Amino acid sequence: MTKPVCLVVGAGAGIGGTTAKRFAREGYHACLARRTDKEGLDRLVGEIEAESGSATGFILNAAEENSIERLVETIEADIGPIDVAIYNLGAQIGDRTLAETSLKAFEMGWRIATFGLFRLAWALCPHMVQRGKGTVLVTSATAAMRGNGGQHSHAAAMGGRRMLCQTLNAQFAPRGIHVVHIVIDGAVDAPDTLGKMLGPARYQELRERKGLEKDGLLLPAEIANTYFHLAHQHRSAWTHELDLRAFSDLPWWNHPSLSL
Amino acid sequence: MTKPVCLVVGAGAGIGGTTAKRFAREGYHACLARRTDKEGLDRLVGEIEAESGSATGFILNAAEENSIERLVETIEADIGPIDVAIYNLGAQIGDRTLAETSLKAFEMGWRIATFGLFRLAWALCPHMVQRGKGTVLVTSATAAMRGNGGQHSHAAAMGGRRMLCQTLNAQFAPRGIHVVHIVIDGAVDAPDTLGKMLGPARYQELRERKGLEKDGLLLPAEIANTYFHLAHQHRSAWTHELDLRAFSDLPWWNHPSLSL
Amino acid sequence: MTKPVCLVVGAGAGIGGTTAKRFAREGYHACLARRTDKEGLDRLVGEIEAESGSATGFILNAAEENSIERLVETIEADIGPIDVAIYNLGAQIGDRTLAETSLKAFEMGWRIATFGLFRLAWALCPHMVQRGKGTVLVTSATAAMRGNGGQHSHAAAMGGRRMLCQTLNAQFAPRGIHVVHIVIDGAVDAPDTLGKMLGPARYQELRERKGLEKDGLLLPAEIANTYFHLAHQHRSAWTHELDLRAFSDLPWWNHPSLSL
Amino acid sequence: MTKPVCLVVGAGAGIGGTTAKRFAREGYHACLARRTDKEGLDRLVGEIEAESGSATGFILNAAEENSIERLVETIEADIGPIDVAIYNLGAQIGDRTLAETSLKAFEMGWRIATFGLFRLAWALCPHMVQRGKGTVLVTSATAAMRGNGGQHSHAAAMGGRRMLCQTLNAQFAPRGIHVVHIVIDGAVDAPDTLGKMLGPARYQELRERKGLEKDGLLLPAEIANTYFHLAHQHRSAWTHELDLRAFSDLPWWNHPSLSL
Repeated sequence: MTKPVCLVVGAGAGIGGTTAKRFAREGYHACLARRTDKEGLDRLVGEIEAESGSATGFILNAAEENSIERLVETIEADIGPIDVAIYNLGAQIGDRTLAETSLKAFEMGWRIATFGLFRLAWALCPHMVQRGKGTVLVTSATAAMRGNGGQHSHAAAMGGRRMLCQTLNAQFAPRGIHVVHIVIDGAVDAPDTLGKMLGPARYQELRERKGLEKDGLLLPAEIANTYFHLAHQHRSAWTHELDLRAFSDLPWWNHPSLSL
Repeated sequence: MTKPVCLVVGAGAGIGGTTAKRFAREGYHACLARRTDKEGLDRLVGEIEAESGSATGFILNAAEENSIERLVETIEADIGPIDVAIYNLGAQIGDRTLAETSLKAFEMGWRIATFGLFRLAWALCPHMVQRGKGTVLVTSATAAMRGNGGQHSHAAAMGGRRMLCQTLNAQFAPRGIHVVHIVIDGAVDAPDTLGKMLGPARYQELRERKGLEKDGLLLPAEIANTYFHLAHQHRSAWTHELDLRAFSDLPWWNHPSLSL
Repeated sequence: MTKPVCLVVGAGAGIGGTTAKRFAREGYHACLARRTDKEGLDRLVGEIEAESGSATGFILNAAEENSIERLVETIEADIGPIDVAIYNLGAQIGDRTLAETSLKAFEMGWRIATFGLFRLAWALCPHMVQRGKGTVLVTSATAAMRGNGGQHSHAAAMGGRRMLCQTLNAQFAPRGIHVVHIVIDGAVDAPDTLGKMLGPARYQELRERKGLEKDGLLLPAEIANTYFHLAHQHRSAWTHELDLRAFSDLPWWNHPSLSL
Repeated sequence: MTKPVCLVVGAGAGIGGTTAKRFAREGYHACLARRTDKEGLDRLVGEIEAESGSATGFILNAAEENSIERLVETIEADIGPIDVAIYNLGAQIGDRTLAETSLKAFEMGWRIATFGLFRLAWALCPHMVQRGKGTVLVTSATAAMRGNGGQHSHAAAMGGRRMLCQTLNAQFAPRGIHVVHIVIDGAVDAPDTLGKMLGPARYQELRERKGLEKDGLLLPAEIANTYFHLAHQHRSAWTHELDLRAFSDLPWWNHPSLSL
């Protein structure tokens, strides 16, 4: 295959799938990996192909030993060199007190959000180093910047992820690999994640109150625009960290200013 | 005029002028303001016009009372609504001990790097609020994130600038004005600033050692790419802060890792 | 005089005066400087003397040219070497929109909160360098860490102050001068500042709701404990930055977690 | 027992053991837990008793399921209420490239540095909540603030730890539990950790070059002073995060300033 490959780990109907489509539209072969929903995966592949793009779908249990590693090897061997990898798995389980956060849930948060990225880098970076180039875009969250109440599992996992992005950058940027830590600071208009967490009724209510014409939810297609830009920054001017939020949302560092 | 206007305050031969050219190429009327060098300013305007773009040059002493304010009013009245403003003035004076940093130099640092932005916002934001949209891109520096030895004036001024970007964002983002704090973390291949600070011989030596084919200096044209992207992010997914550095440079938060 | 001197710039009835008393109780001669209220100043000196301490009061307009510089020289010449300096001036003017923040107010914020500290350091550090030791404790605010809505003047000034503390630390820590940036993250139970900003009725209401037996306001005497500790850290284990807040208050980096 | 209990998890000859001694000297019963070296542990207990203090030693494999949890229950049941817990375990393995960092090492880093603290909090916080008070002091590292080259395992684990400290603080501070994240930013003069990592010859060379009379290594006894202060801050003025470093060391956020 002569197309460059864009691998999306965590390719649901939100940021992952939408970004995959965007890269496919620009000439990449999209490799889509997600844990469940073969049907949704096939639909995504179909949608990309309907736009004359090309894509391959993979069902992947990222928590499973060797799964990510094998996926990388398979793609590198059978499809082509992975030019861009997007790590888009999270383990947000909603607000839970410490007592409600089981050891298992805490460990799973780390396994998905921190360890999975480590394993992806472990498998992929040697390939990229050999080619002297490559991009790893990491979808992250405000929880990587500060730990809110109820976010024991998510924040600890994302905080680890952020530091890992920095250590990867420290080692690999000089070798031509661009690692970006992207802080999504707000609710994304994504049926697979936010929609599932809230349930259909509350999700629709939120979309009507903040989203739709009001742009108060992060739109995946607009996020994908910035992902694409980041993957194409020239190596003389790379971004390592940036935030993304809806214009009407309160940044994580601000408290509401009641008197304005 | 039907073209949108892009105002660049601090339009030398580096980030400012190059970004102005980029916006002009994309259909903006570029308003270029700089303190001195009428000839260089005219040359920039000429280069833009030679590419079928349009531009107006202004000699502006930003430290002078009312200067920025008058410039904004003049452009809004005579040229057109300012869609994008790029504040690109700094006051880097090189490393100086506290004893070598005069009260005057310290004040001038603030006057240019912090107060000037405040005055620009003061004059411009009301216009943008009326239109419900606008972008303010602020070129900043690592000194806004941490204060290195010898940077008393520059760091204090840039730290103030960073916080001001956040307070502007807090008030104006919900009104549709996109304020971005752009951390340039490294040396820019710019003859007007770096070149002047180092002198021609050391500048050329640095370019040969790190820049040119090695991409080890930040290239203004590549920075301009990201500026343009930021100015065109959809309001559902705005970036407020990001860093830019050459792939081979040490980020400000890292110490060299001797053993790797 | 054989007592070490502790200079407090901004010695009102809150953090400044209370800290001065604490140092006086521990054997320091307290030099108290404040802008107005000679009577209150004399009362503070009297209270210190009533506890068998010693103190000198100064009325000081810190914004006035050469005022801080002269104060330092006077104390060094007439009273004794300044061992500890506490810079406790701020310029919080409450929440104001950009339009409500005059150029004059913005400049005064910087002049008091950033430039005054620069001038203090300029005058004092050479003395301390000669002695190979000294402590500069800087009372700062959350506004140094992030810019909230309505805080244009305060945040820009405090952001500059924070970076200045870092550049001072970078130059002077290796010479034995301990500079500490202390982030007061919450309302202080201080009649001179919070009390004046809120007015007596709202202040009393707040004290009853959060403070008094509830410890929901920062108590100056408890803050003073930590100031004293910081000034006596051994140089092998110095703190440069820390936060202080009431246990029941939301840290600046947290948003309320509604569901817990 | 009527003495308050101070539990130190990770009580070697450096910060842990020294802090335990300090608390014992101030009237606490010290519970010392460490993974190996029963002899060293007994010696520590003996030294505390020789100063008329009281202490109990525990050999604890913190990575083992249920070990920390059982320790907490044992102490609470048999010795007394844990007033102060100091989590002092780390998993610094020195600089290693990604290829040299095994999955196992990366997981172990997390298991010790992040998960262990989570488990301690899980077991201990309910007890403290019932009493409406308690202190958890967490020894952390610069790696929690930024990820240096070669620190994949350590930084990811410490970054997770830092966020966990914040989520614990968010939930438990209002319930009277003081959680502190202490950033040790430099080499500690500790034979058990630094000494083992460097080997006796390099350790002694470093001590002679930077430490001893030069105070260029963090002295455990001085660190313990600040730990003790933190544990006794009044709840109206708590610190959540602070740094500690030797006066002559470069803070993590600074690059050397060559020209000063």
